[in-house]
Amino acid sequence: MSDGRDEFALIARHFAPLARTPAARGLLDDAAFLENAGPLVVTADAIVEGVHFLPDDPIDTVAQKALRVNISDVVAKGATPSHYLLTLQWPATRPASEIGQFAAGLARDQATFGCTLLGGDTTATPGPLGVAVTMFGKPLGAVPPSRRDAKVGDDVWVTGSIGDGRLGLLALTEGLPMLNAIAVAQLVERYRVPTPRLAFAPAIAAFAHASMDISDGLIDDAWKIAVASGVRLMLDPDATPLSAPALAWLAAQGDRRLGLTALLNGGDDYEVLFTAAPSARGRLLEAADDAGVPLRQIGAVAAGQGVDAGGIPASGHVHRLGS
Amino acid sequence: MSDGRDEFALIARHFAPLARTPAARGLLDDAAFLENAGPLVVTADAIVEGVHFLPDDPIDTVAQKALRVNISDVVAKGATPSHYLLTLQWPATRPASEIGQFAAGLARDQATFGCTLLGGDTTATPGPLGVAVTMFGKPLGAVPPSRRDAKVGDDVWVTGSIGDGRLGLLALTEGLPMLNAIAVAQLVERYRVPTPRLAFAPAIAAFAHASMDISDGLIDDAWKIAVASGVRLMLDPDATPLSAPALAWLAAQGDRRLGLTALLNGGDDYEVLFTAAPSARGRLLEAADDAGVPLRQIGAVAAGQGVDAGGIPASGHVHRLGS
Repeated sequence: MSDGRDEFALIARHFAPLARTPAARGLLDDAAFLENAGPLVVTADAIVEGVHFLPDDPIDTVAQKALRVNISDVVAKGATPSHYLLTLQWPATRPASEIGQFAAGLARDQATFGCTLLGGDTTATPGPLGVAVTMFGKPLGAVPPSRRDAKVGDDVWVTGSIGDGRLGLLALTEGLPMLNAIAVAQLVERYRVPTPRLAFAPAIAAFAHASMDISDGLIDDAWKIAVASGVRLMLDPDATPLSAPALAWLAAQGDRRLGLTALLNGGDDYEVLFTAAPSARGRLLEAADDAGVPLRQIGAVAAGQGVDAGGIPASGHVHRLGS
Repeated sequence: MSDGRDEFALIARHFAPLARTPAARGLLDDAAFLENAGPLVVTADAIVEGVHFLPDDPIDTVAQKALRVNISDVVAKGATPSHYLLTLQWPATRPASEIGQFAAGLARDQATFGCTLLGGDTTATPGPLGVAVTMFGKPLGAVPPSRRDAKVGDDVWVTGSIGDGRLGLLALTEGLPMLNAIAVAQLVERYRVPTPRLAFAPAIAAFAHASMDISDGLIDDAWKIAVASGVRLMLDPDATPLSAPALAWLAAQGDRRLGLTALLNGGDDYEVLFTAAPSARGRLLEAADDAGVPLRQIGAVAAGQGVDAGGIPASGHVHRLGS
């Protein structure tokens, strides 16, 4: 399906160069054809203007975010991204000239993450811009870690830093006058263009028991692992890795506990939350060091259910604009 | 990504029963895992409220249409649908109770077409309902027919009937007072719930040279085959298969030629347009008969370029509501 020849020309010009695999058939066919897809990790996530990104976010970062929230899922399964399909709902009110910048964002991330456009669809919409991506990944282990394989006695780990995405959104919507311009820019960048930890995927494949990416907030997502695995996750909120801007923001809060609650429930982190045997500690830290990926142990898996985050409550999806 | 626990509960209740393959991991993971995907046909198409369906179309038919426009692509490649991912952008203004009816529509078509939900994503949207589907298919032949394999001397064939979708849309938006209620209902059904010719997929795989599904109108899509294959498609407009309601509508038009122009450029047909060697004629007609799929030869492939439809012009995407 398409909206006729206009789309035909638009796609040919901007998207065909992104699909340099014979499997994509130059985006000129009804379907792509993978001769042998082999073992495949598959995920599909959409981002919508006004819900997952702001209307005036630069359009190339919107393209990057759409890819990265999906790559983040693939990486959390100990896999590397290979191909993706893109379904674009383009508002009639948005200049078609932005399509080129959008494609440039895709091209940049294809190079960064080693994946290729395989197919998709562009339609006009009377509503907000919507970008749906289906991402394929090649698992590096025999079976990708699920959410349900946390074992009592496991360590709980998290990559990168937590809460930056939430603060970046706050900076854009309400302003963060207590921070300097460089700190604000760093947080905004984290909100707009998250950082999937691709270099750490082999370590996830080798050592992770349960694993997922954090999109709805650290505590909310820890809760999902706890439910799926039938265990209790004991998290030390003070062990949560925070970036320098987040630490500065936290220091400026009257109530440190309320501040931590916001950061740990912020969402848009796109870091990996996983559990692993304590015996893997040394090798995990070494792998993280080699990969240049920040890694911190933030808790342990116990018998029971739910999440104990030192009394910090799970406040749910406070970070969504539209819900 | 999700909108937190509400979605979590909603999906678990309505969508998890649709994902009865271990590969889907109960929709409780970040990604699905196919141990060996093998040869794979992949397509992604979205439908948007107010563009591809009407706001008051029954919600179960919206689900069916979203699947069927994708299954139609798979069938046109001589493949059978196996799995799909669903990305749902659900308006805050639409009652959540409709999710159950939406899922019922999916369930009905999963049974009809033999495919299974593999994963996806539901997000809130301030805009219209959007349903993006990525569909996987198993090719029945070694290499699925593309658009670029039409050969000079081939016959041109089409399944089913042409123009019904366009008339169904007209019936809903402007009314068709010249037709009786049964005819109108039949056309509306064709607009809302197209009929992918699954039973004919083996014949496509065995005999088709170039093949595609008709979504933008017979002439427009014939033009795509012509361009991709570097040939000229000679179509006999009077050979175009028309349903009884379409014939009645055409008879009521003052100008038969204008009427035919509308039908041949209508879009939303989701029939298969393909070319094949004249030597396959007998076996194609036999296969169509066995499959219970109407099949008609509507022209031939000649040297040259573009489409000759007996002087009927390609009027482009006249059928879209929003464009």
